[in-house]
Amino acid sequence: MNQTATITASKPTSLDSLYSLISADMKAVNALILARVSGEIPLISDIVHHIIASGGKRIRPALTLISAQLCGFSGTRQIALAAAVEFIHTATLLHDDVVDESKLRRGLPAANEIFGNKASVLVGDFLLSQAFQIMVADGSLKTLKILSDASAVIAKGEVMQLMTEGEPETTIENYLEVVGAKTAVLFAAACEIGAVLAEKPADEAKLRSFGMDIGIAFQLIDDALDYGSDAKTIGKNVGDDFCEGKVTLPVILAYAAGDAQEKDFWKRVLGADSEPQQNEGDLQKAISMLKKHGTIQKTIAMAERYCKKASDNLLNFPASPARAAMLDLVDFCASRAY
Amino acid sequence: MNQTATITASKPTSLDSLYSLISADMKAVNALILARVSGEIPLISDIVHHIIASGGKRIRPALTLISAQLCGFSGTRQIALAAAVEFIHTATLLHDDVVDESKLRRGLPAANEIFGNKASVLVGDFLLSQAFQIMVADGSLKTLKILSDASAVIAKGEVMQLMTEGEPETTIENYLEVVGAKTAVLFAAACEIGAVLAEKPADEAKLRSFGMDIGIAFQLIDDALDYGSDAKTIGKNVGDDFCEGKVTLPVILAYAAGDAQEKDFWKRVLGADSEPQQNEGDLQKAISMLKKHGTIQKTIAMAERYCKKASDNLLNFPASPARAAMLDLVDFCASRAY
Repeated sequence: MNQTATITASKPTSLDSLYSLISADMKAVNALILARVSGEIPLISDIVHHIIASGGKRIRPALTLISAQLCGFSGTRQIALAAAVEFIHTATLLHDDVVDESKLRRGLPAANEIFGNKASVLVGDFLLSQAFQIMVADGSLKTLKILSDASAVIAKGEVMQLMTEGEPETTIENYLEVVGAKTAVLFAAACEIGAVLAEKPADEAKLRSFGMDIGIAFQLIDDALDYGSDAKTIGKNVGDDFCEGKVTLPVILAYAAGDAQEKDFWKRVLGADSEPQQNEGDLQKAISMLKKHGTIQKTIAMAERYCKKASDNLLNFPASPARAAMLDLVDFCASRAY
Repeated sequence: MNQTATITASKPTSLDSLYSLISADMKAVNALILARVSGEIPLISDIVHHIIASGGKRIRPALTLISAQLCGFSGTRQIALAAAVEFIHTATLLHDDVVDESKLRRGLPAANEIFGNKASVLVGDFLLSQAFQIMVADGSLKTLKILSDASAVIAKGEVMQLMTEGEPETTIENYLEVVGAKTAVLFAAACEIGAVLAEKPADEAKLRSFGMDIGIAFQLIDDALDYGSDAKTIGKNVGDDFCEGKVTLPVILAYAAGDAQEKDFWKRVLGADSEPQQNEGDLQKAISMLKKHGTIQKTIAMAERYCKKASDNLLNFPASPARAAMLDLVDFCASRAY
């Protein structure tokens, strides 16, 4: 693990407190997800089992479940809506796989590597339609609005990311806008639904804001880990983003701080003006530039500021086991980088 | 046009009566579609202009508009819902283009040839999300259910088609199931919405059934035209389906009627057991087999039976300009093959 020298173990935290509070609900969510695709044509159930059943953290549906608890909701509607959130997320993953030609997701080969691009697109569409069917059956126009708005923003964020691909002159603001759109908005929607279910309109904006902050922090940490962890830990290869020419914050900061020669390097390997051209040793060279300018640490520091905002926001809620678990989740998010 | 020898001009019909009845509404639909994407990031508006503004027949939104008229609806909600129907259709086209590597759509190069597969997937997602946002804003859970169910069936139909790709032993029943799912269900939903808007529950099933029949007929005629028209007329190349290894009714019937040598030919060119292998002259050979077994005519005859069912269904409605225009539409559908 010599690539991870900038990132050393310190804070131990876990999601145990979160998952113990929502374990019954989460079992029901998993059962519902599998029920919606079992008996389906084999290609659909195979892909869904591959992705959904492969043991991801289920962080987005967990946010819906714990937010509903935080707001004192005691019904059962959170199950279906959490499943809808996970279906939207999974559809996005499948479509993102087509786009990014990712080689590894959660430690398993990406679905499109096994099943083909065609299947990824169409099964993604199927899952998205399941999400909307679930929401329609739930019958709340308010949650339908929250999640259809989120879907629109996610799609726009993905297109924006596509347009800035390989372009290291992207500004931090533009980058945060993309991250907000393609990642954080679904975190925000997942949380906001908890307040909607509990009919606590005053909590909607607070939970939405919490979700945005934790979502951005999650993505920033992912971006940092991509240059400083190993495939076993994060379930994707070190340098995946680099190989795909993804312009993430560590790169944007390094490009901005770099001299003319460094800028030329980034343009060549990311493909700013033409197809990316990467040679052996380029990833190591890239990582040493990130270290030189301390941009992995700066990215983590920015994530920590978003985590801090998220924690502060939670302190507006009265103390409860749900709040404590959500604070642990924030700690976990930040600690992934250590 | 020597490839179209089996199909000779006879019945002249047009969609003029239909479009004259809905022209104001259709202008509003077009304006709404463009308004939803103008000011969007360039890639999105470019692709939408390319596809939506390239002068397709807009048959699906037209069905919503004319069905609403048939049922005596006099409000304005049909505009937004017709736009939602067209967005769903366009998203499907974009995702289908990725899948099928079609070379030509409506006489223009398919969007993915110009903009790339990535953009087609993501902009398709964006358009689908617009459709749901429009429906949510309309506020009817009933139409949301109709169109989210349709989306689910379409996605499943596309996956089913993917699974039978290159397999000429598909049964007619299985083929009709795929056509029903991937094409006719959206026609059916587009029509049913007219009755829902007019609050005529007794007409919902009738219009749904009309839409299914006309949708299946449309697809069957498309399948026939693919082997017997020219690119200028139908906006795609003769033999597109053949080149893509699509197993359509003319082929299924020719395979079933063919001897061992013919069966081997179809398996080779469609790629039943391995990658499709097509040599120069294979398309002509295929067309001559279809002629030998009369399967293009049989496909058209089946389409005409669906058209007849659709017309009979309309006769359950009292005579009106809308009904007359819909009967013309049915005639047009059948006459495309002559």
